[in-house]
Amino acid sequence: MQTLLNHRSVRKYTTDPIPEDTLNQILEAGCRASNTGNMQTYSIVVSKSADIKKKLAPAHFNQPMVEAAAAVLTFCVDVRRFTRWCNLRNADVDFNNLQAYTGAFVDAILCSQNVAIAAEKHGLGICFLGTTTYIADKIIDVLGLPQGVVPVTTITMGYPDGETEMSSRLPQKYIVHNEVFHDYTDKDINDCYSALEAEPTSAKFIAENKKENLAQVFSEVRYPRANCQHFSNVFLDVLKKQKLI
Amino acid sequence: MQTLLNHRSVRKYTTDPIPEDTLNQILEAGCRASNTGNMQTYSIVVSKSADIKKKLAPAHFNQPMVEAAAAVLTFCVDVRRFTRWCNLRNADVDFNNLQAYTGAFVDAILCSQNVAIAAEKHGLGICFLGTTTYIADKIIDVLGLPQGVVPVTTITMGYPDGETEMSSRLPQKYIVHNEVFHDYTDKDINDCYSALEAEPTSAKFIAENKKENLAQVFSEVRYPRANCQHFSNVFLDVLKKQKLI
Repeated sequence: MQTLLNHRSVRKYTTDPIPEDTLNQILEAGCRASNTGNMQTYSIVVSKSADIKKKLAPAHFNQPMVEAAAAVLTFCVDVRRFTRWCNLRNADVDFNNLQAYTGAFVDAILCSQNVAIAAEKHGLGICFLGTTTYIADKIIDVLGLPQGVVPVTTITMGYPDGETEMSSRLPQKYIVHNEVFHDYTDKDINDCYSALEAEPTSAKFIAENKKENLAQVFSEVRYPRANCQHFSNVFLDVLKKQKLI
Repeated sequence: MQTLLNHRSVRKYTTDPIPEDTLNQILEAGCRASNTGNMQTYSIVVSKSADIKKKLAPAHFNQPMVEAAAAVLTFCVDVRRFTRWCNLRNADVDFNNLQAYTGAFVDAILCSQNVAIAAEKHGLGICFLGTTTYIADKIIDVLGLPQGVVPVTTITMGYPDGETEMSSRLPQKYIVHNEVFHDYTDKDINDCYSALEAEPTSAKFIAENKKENLAQVFSEVRYPRANCQHFSNVFLDVLKKQKLI
């Protein structure tokens, strides 16, 4: 339980490599996660070479973790392996659709969280990269992902260089709903975000970005409308091109 | 590590309730999972009443776990809370798009896996329900999910009634790719599935379903083309209706 409760994203790593045996145990733990119908329609690409990490970096907006990490793990929806099996066995199959993609997406992410926890148990630090679905076409090029395969999340992994602060979370009472969904009142929203808004770093972000409040920093600077729409269109094209929907 | 390596889906539960304090600790562990930009764009609906579980059961093809479980946890993408916050703060926001949905989907599933592991640490048994995105419109009705909210996975949870066998997994070497993606040869596919095909239960499934091989059981009986396409269309409509894409 302590591993789960003490999680923090680690973005600075030493240059120590991850022993092969350790990495294999971590990946084994990943593959033990629940998955849809026990079909395991996902793949994990483990990139450790400086060359591949350097090529992947621009696809993650050159965040320094990518090149600094001992390993970059790209988790992919992969309906290709299953489809190939069915084709070889004269079995009628259509897994190039939204439901198969959605089930595979769940599987890939469940696996990734087991990998993250197992890595932390082994003293490693990890960081998830939400950028994976932004410039997915670039990742597809670098990793040579064929049709039926698309990247959905990435973990950078290495031995932590220094301590990292734990980030805060919204109060559980606004995340968890009893029995059915209880819609948010204005008061709920104000209560829910008040502690986050009162953090010293929030005032810093507001000042740095010349905004009126923290919500504007999130929605106008970090995740602005134009970017959301642009990268949604890019990812939709990627899903179509890879024949996942 | 043992919790991760010993996971099995538990579908039979005793009638013992889950102590409130235990459930809160489990949910707390869930919320500590990594999430996109620390926005926590997800919600968890925890249903324990016989009435709600009975109403949810048909949305999961009446799998007996739903009514038998002490608690049914429906994990939802929820861009509504964040959007409401931005609206109240005069912040320009558009989180009703594929990228925000995708990030929220990742977050909801990472959270769900922490919940699963924490529950197992507490001696509980869990089962993920992949049916969640099949008849999602029914779940939306029962739980009263408003626009901006859609269910993406469900965990049934309770104290295990009896032992459960651990299910097998495909060989790790065909799930994990070194440096870049290595496409599957026919031999790879045959090797990858050979142990699964040789399991005694596989022969049983083939005979029961009057099929030639296990691949046909998966792709023609369990996940047939017509169902995949039908439920893909239903879910696409749900995503549009809930204003998530």
